[in-house]
Amino acid sequence: MTKPDKRVAVLSPIAWRTPPRQYGAWETVASNITEGLVARGWDVTLFASRDSVTRARLHAVVDKGYEEDSAVDPKVAEYLHISEAFERAAEFDLIHSHYDFMALTYTRLVKTPVLTTIHGFSSAKIMPVYQKYRDGYFVSISDSDRAAGLNYLATVYNGIDLSLYPLQEAGGDDLIFLGRIHPDKGVHLAIEVARLSGLRLIIAGIIQDEAYFREQVKPHLDDQNILYIGPAGVPGKNELFARARALLHLNTIPERFGLVLVEANAAGVPVIAMDLGSCREVIKDGQTGFLVDNVTEAVRALGRISEIDRRACRSRVRQYFSIDTMVEGYERVYSTIFDLEAKRRP
Amino acid sequence: MTKPDKRVAVLSPIAWRTPPRQYGAWETVASNITEGLVARGWDVTLFASRDSVTRARLHAVVDKGYEEDSAVDPKVAEYLHISEAFERAAEFDLIHSHYDFMALTYTRLVKTPVLTTIHGFSSAKIMPVYQKYRDGYFVSISDSDRAAGLNYLATVYNGIDLSLYPLQEAGGDDLIFLGRIHPDKGVHLAIEVARLSGLRLIIAGIIQDEAYFREQVKPHLDDQNILYIGPAGVPGKNELFARARALLHLNTIPERFGLVLVEANAAGVPVIAMDLGSCREVIKDGQTGFLVDNVTEAVRALGRISEIDRRACRSRVRQYFSIDTMVEGYERVYSTIFDLEAKRRP
Repeated sequence: MTKPDKRVAVLSPIAWRTPPRQYGAWETVASNITEGLVARGWDVTLFASRDSVTRARLHAVVDKGYEEDSAVDPKVAEYLHISEAFERAAEFDLIHSHYDFMALTYTRLVKTPVLTTIHGFSSAKIMPVYQKYRDGYFVSISDSDRAAGLNYLATVYNGIDLSLYPLQEAGGDDLIFLGRIHPDKGVHLAIEVARLSGLRLIIAGIIQDEAYFREQVKPHLDDQNILYIGPAGVPGKNELFARARALLHLNTIPERFGLVLVEANAAGVPVIAMDLGSCREVIKDGQTGFLVDNVTEAVRALGRISEIDRRACRSRVRQYFSIDTMVEGYERVYSTIFDLEAKRRP
Repeated sequence: MTKPDKRVAVLSPIAWRTPPRQYGAWETVASNITEGLVARGWDVTLFASRDSVTRARLHAVVDKGYEEDSAVDPKVAEYLHISEAFERAAEFDLIHSHYDFMALTYTRLVKTPVLTTIHGFSSAKIMPVYQKYRDGYFVSISDSDRAAGLNYLATVYNGIDLSLYPLQEAGGDDLIFLGRIHPDKGVHLAIEVARLSGLRLIIAGIIQDEAYFREQVKPHLDDQNILYIGPAGVPGKNELFARARALLHLNTIPERFGLVLVEANAAGVPVIAMDLGSCREVIKDGQTGFLVDNVTEAVRALGRISEIDRRACRSRVRQYFSIDTMVEGYERVYSTIFDLEAKRRP
């Protein structure tokens, strides 16, 4: 496989810009893959919103992410965006889709092979689409986030740009929460840990569930011990990492991957994570943080946080969760697909 | 063109069953076209919900209309349903789509020509899709409901099965409203006409705008002069037609076609309609009803309702808005498409 001979289209979501300004894990990963492939000599066309930032060739049919542009109907934008990539399928040797179940419905209408990275199953109601197209090519982002019966070629862990998150050698005394304000993310459990441990908790993230925020988060905010600071981009995250003793990630449903765990670890911040879903794959218990089953265990783990070597956290990220590692993983998958396709069409 | 040599796929919406049990104008028309084509010897495959009723070959991937099945995600159902038809495109000489802008995004991925009947532009936000695919084949359902720049082959008026709506020779004394309870349909204006004229008004239809119903309809209901009876299927409509002096259709935005106007006329019921959009094409002023510009004119028109010949109303429907007339219109359009395609691919 000579890389420059192969042309890859990356189909990014368009909820947000690629990469997103703040929140937007799927767009972040699609961006990291795109830029990683370009850095390694691949010919890449990125299908994303027009305001996206990339070193690849950008192809856009919508100006901005539909979450950032009230003039756009999300459904209209999605249909236009996805179909555009498939209408140009003949220009590519591979379409690498990050566009959930919707893009699958176009895959049988083109000859170009399509690889779908499944960033998560948002609802049981979308499963009929995956079941119909189960013979396609799929990558899971953790071993735990897999659906039965799909043709998975590999698990490829999400990778981040470590240079964005420099090591915070000392850290600080605060607990931090980073993520969507949603019951799935266990913000209420993080608050409980903070109160029981007597440590300050700083909460950052977009409010996705207004009622949850109003009823289970807001009443605890006191401008002193429990603070909410809104969403945080990269600079904001680094400020938080600099003052963090640990990141609390007490998710209440199985985590699909957990990008923020990796970002925290990259900065040397130990992670206390609920042992649900992918957390066990991302966090090495006792080495880059602690896996717990409940609030009591989380409080206990805080007492052992000094055992964690901050440099070891970053080293593990570099080894398993860097852009290079991720892109190497995808290169192996691409190679498998090209071999399979070559056999299929003699 | 020998009909049995041509295979047509009709892509119906799946909000409701085809034909719908009660409300569902698009599904009604798709059904009438399908059954009309079958009756005239065409080989037709209907893509619709599995509980649909047809003499054509039925192909279904969702059990019920998503408005009738809370277990289904509408977006998932739509993507599965539409793509299924396009994946089978090679089996057909023509795909006749009633599926709005979404289906257009698959049309360039298949060789089979696609005709789209535009049942209405629901929002300015969907126009970018029509503009992108403007070179496709389009039919408008009235001359008034057209967007600039699209490749329209014809206007084909919607047709109904006249046998469903027998002539009510005598009629009655009541005013009737039939349609969605929504400000666009001017239910509040119909109520005003009823109060000013001192006639009873019976309102039937699904409540699409709850706040509108609560604020502008419900306060006027008195179980005697202004009544709301919920949605009405064919039998319910006929009961209303039997007691109707006139149907009030005081739409506040341009009507796209107005199927209920035709149904009422078929039963011999005169229609008082706002002179907006297609009403002028459907109602012959002074012959099958009256076109008005406001409530005052509507009340005045009621005084002239005895001038309308109920048999003439039905005759006009038979001539212009029957299934046969509609299907003949579509046969001419299909023929044009087959000729154009034959020239395109020698």
